Amino acid sequence: MKWLRFRLGERQGYGCLDGDEVLVHEGDLFSAARPTGERLPLAGLTWLTPCVPGKMIGLWNNFAALAEKNGWARPTEPLYFLKAPSSFAAHGEAIAPPATDVGRIAYEGELAIVIGRRARAVSPADAPSCIFGYTCANDVTAMELIARDPSFPQWARAKSFDGFGVFGPVIETDFDPAQATLRTRVSGRERQNYPLSDMCFGPAELVSRLSHDMTLEPGDVILCGTSLGVMPMKPGCVVEVEIDGIGVLANPYG
Amino acid sequence: MKWLRFRLGERQGYGCLDGDEVLVHEGDLFSAARPTGERLPLAGLTWLTPCVPGKMIGLWNNFAALAEKNGWARPTEPLYFLKAPSSFAAHGEAIAPPATDVGRIAYEGELAIVIGRRARAVSPADAPSCIFGYTCANDVTAMELIARDPSFPQWARAKSFDGFGVFGPVIETDFDPAQATLRTRVSGRERQNYPLSDMCFGPAELVSRLSHDMTLEPGDVILCGTSLGVMPMKPGCVVEVEIDGIGVLANPYG
Repeated sequence: MKWLRFRLGERQGYGCLDGDEVLVHEGDLFSAARPTGERLPLAGLTWLTPCVPGKMIGLWNNFAALAEKNGWARPTEPLYFLKAPSSFAAHGEAIAPPATDVGRIAYEGELAIVIGRRARAVSPADAPSCIFGYTCANDVTAMELIARDPSFPQWARAKSFDGFGVFGPVIETDFDPAQATLRTRVSGRERQNYPLSDMCFGPAELVSRLSHDMTLEPGDVILCGTSLGVMPMKPGCVVEVEIDGIGVLANPYG
Repeated sequence: MKWLRFRLGERQGYGCLDGDEVLVHEGDLFSAARPTGERLPLAGLTWLTPCVPGKMIGLWNNFAALAEKNGWARPTEPLYFLKAPSSFAAHGEAIAPPATDVGRIAYEGELAIVIGRRARAVSPADAPSCIFGYTCANDVTAMELIARDPSFPQWARAKSFDGFGVFGPVIETDFDPAQATLRTRVSGRERQNYPLSDMCFGPAELVSRLSHDMTLEPGDVILCGTSLGVMPMKPGCVVEVEIDGIGVLANPYG
């Protein structure tokens, strides 16, 4: 099932996709979603982020091919940063460059896990039951800002400008990351194409380990990290992140 | 005025302090608070965090005395990390050590800014109008975890275990940081005592600069950083962070 949130005039709502229509639902998405009977044509709706995360956790160095290319040691534990909620942006939204000059801005096409059930110190075996589904993400990054100050790496800042936390368009609940490929296109040209099976820590392992650090809540999002092919964006480009079986997240930049 | 949130049985509410009573209010704290007429004795209430931040930003290296002692260059721009919402804890709550061994856990007594009005690229002159008030914070930190992996400093993780984002007990709206001192006591023994005037970037400057990176929303909290006297906590201790004119934030550890 593919879940999405939408705006229609002043109204916000959510539902699941059925062809080119949305079957509107009500109640809590993660625990009590029920159809209202209303159907809306997708074409008339404005996309919202498919959920409203309390927190977004982003993985660094979680793909073997990228680690090998950069000469990074394979991580012994998940290494991560946080993205501010004010950075969240939906499918179709234009991403603006930061107001201040912070150097080049890169796209990073990623798989995102959406939590569906509170997870606190869960085992890898129990972790899948805490995952609601998966979505596409563009983990936009001010790549030169991270190391600009030699005394303190600015991960949170470089990842948290308004519009830098792009995810959607839908949450797919029936999805097997081990079988899928992610492709990122920039203005139509393919720049990333990697198998999601190449993760150092897969989704169940990530949810288990992170849940030992902090309680994961329904709607929380974990970005699984990116692989080869990250490049700076030029104003005027359109970035599309496509994952087999989920869909295409497309956003203009600049 | 001193604002607080409370639990009373199944009920949650908020209000302002009047001696040993709470004048209960309703409506949005930041835009439409109005008294209900009800008064409750403070003694019968359980403290909650005085607001529910969408994000908590923490400053690193923002006090001149600490920078000097550690031989750190004075920062040319605010250097910060994010703490996960799942870490938030209230006055009086017991802080548990992490489930996994991540080394020593330190208290950090800090002044916290509470945003009252949306701030996006505001000037230092306009920033004070976006500040609702101030509260005390204990920016609990897994100090040895930060540099445990040589390839990636784990700031977000070290700062975000459940219970590591302690703030309260109240938000004071009439407060001048330039005139106040912060003291941290551990089981009654004073460990920190520093003037808030020693900040590298003061509150108006912080709000202005951060608002150029990301939109600040009502209820967002900025931890202004700590100064001299940070030490690991021993299980069984009680940490009190006191700021003149605001109050005492007290939490047992372990």
